[in-house]
Amino acid sequence: MKSSPIRVTVIQNSPQFGAPEKNRKEVEDLIFSQEDPSAGLIVLPELFATGYQFVSKDEVVSLAEPEDGPTFEFLSSLSRKTGAVVVGGLPIRRADGISNGALVVWGERLLASYDKVHLFDRERDFFVEGKSPLPVVTTPFGPMGVMICFDWLFPEALRSLALSGATVVAHPANWVLPFGPQGMILRSVENRLFTVTANRVGTEERGGLSPLRYIGESQIVSPKGEILARAGSDRPEIITATIRPEEALSKKVAEKSDFFEQRRPELYHPGLSTRERPS
Amino acid sequence: MKSSPIRVTVIQNSPQFGAPEKNRKEVEDLIFSQEDPSAGLIVLPELFATGYQFVSKDEVVSLAEPEDGPTFEFLSSLSRKTGAVVVGGLPIRRADGISNGALVVWGERLLASYDKVHLFDRERDFFVEGKSPLPVVTTPFGPMGVMICFDWLFPEALRSLALSGATVVAHPANWVLPFGPQGMILRSVENRLFTVTANRVGTEERGGLSPLRYIGESQIVSPKGEILARAGSDRPEIITATIRPEEALSKKVAEKSDFFEQRRPELYHPGLSTRERPS
Repeated sequence: MKSSPIRVTVIQNSPQFGAPEKNRKEVEDLIFSQEDPSAGLIVLPELFATGYQFVSKDEVVSLAEPEDGPTFEFLSSLSRKTGAVVVGGLPIRRADGISNGALVVWGERLLASYDKVHLFDRERDFFVEGKSPLPVVTTPFGPMGVMICFDWLFPEALRSLALSGATVVAHPANWVLPFGPQGMILRSVENRLFTVTANRVGTEERGGLSPLRYIGESQIVSPKGEILARAGSDRPEIITATIRPEEALSKKVAEKSDFFEQRRPELYHPGLSTRERPS
Repeated sequence: MKSSPIRVTVIQNSPQFGAPEKNRKEVEDLIFSQEDPSAGLIVLPELFATGYQFVSKDEVVSLAEPEDGPTFEFLSSLSRKTGAVVVGGLPIRRADGISNGALVVWGERLLASYDKVHLFDRERDFFVEGKSPLPVVTTPFGPMGVMICFDWLFPEALRSLALSGATVVAHPANWVLPFGPQGMILRSVENRLFTVTANRVGTEERGGLSPLRYIGESQIVSPKGEILARAGSDRPEIITATIRPEEALSKKVAEKSDFFEQRRPELYHPGLSTRERPS
């Protein structure tokens, strides 16, 4: 693993529903408002270009894209201009429906795509659940995990990424519940890795539905639970921190205690995972 | 499951090292200082009568007890006087060494004993690790899980108790790290159950070791993450709350989202649990 530090950039935007071009422009402007926009990793929110509060399946279909559509082109362009691995969320057209997905792009390459496996509330009316494990992607700065928003509340999700070797987890979100910013500190601590949450801000109120207020507070948290950067809750913002991913290789929490070595998988509930075990 | 509410009492004491009789007296005085000491559940801290900062194995041996020793007698006496299921921590003499254990006592009966499976730091020099899963105990108010202090930082521990049906988790602790009081809110939320943490206060500095300051902040947290009661950090205290354990039967977090129904065990890392699966 590369041992030099990397700069992590998080974009907290305020998408306007159904206006992808405008929203991509807002993201671009935020990034290039920096004196030096270069980075090792850039993370954008869940559904950063479409907005979130869909009122019909038709809307989802009309805003969905293939993996190599305009969002891929946009993320690739950001990557080429900044040098960063870029992660961002979008509705992805799949054979059996539309997923609430994320792309991981580096230069011209799609390193990975992910379909959210824990859909929140009304998302279940519009999206198909992912059928593959949360991915750990090989990047220039080491193995990076990806999860989307509500995935974080299932402790098995981030634990699975950590056990698969992730040292950094990119976490596009559209948080409306209040537990995330504080709760992600525990997620970083218990797995001893960096978490990078990109949340959005703003309010949506569409089609007679209850209004949704997104809480912002995008953040970058260290394996020790330090908040390296945190955004406010009411406006578009960009936050950055410099991290050394290899600090997440040690799972030690005290001189004689280590979070991985001391796990007792032989004693945990067998229903925690039913995935086929390697023989 | 009984649907009437139960009163939960948490004792936050300040044990003097190596003075079990004095420490038991302090606990008793706290409980019977209440106008009405009756309760459904009383939880005491980890090692509540011995103190924590052992400097030698001989000390551990001399303060350890069998399951039916003076601590059992004391907890049984508390139970008979209050009607409560009583949980408290002690060093337990086992065939292969001393465990950092807890007893669950109701009336004259030992409902369960538990040997901590995740030992923190120097505890590993003095105690043997538990060899059995964290227990879920049948009580008059339903299935109750037990874990001790550092166990909480392993998400698999409380998740295992929740998957085994626990609606309330008794959690004797001797917290010195700062993450517990806030972190346990997420543990309650992600598993949608009541957590009852009894921590101690005070400082120990023995045999030239670095001083240990116990942070108190004993608390009772609801399945929705509400702090029903929380103690301060610097003095012996008793806190209580009335809870309905059956509120923890529903794992719903939103109209269309449910923390248990939406788990995707077929996608999680197979190393989460290596316990034999039921065929």
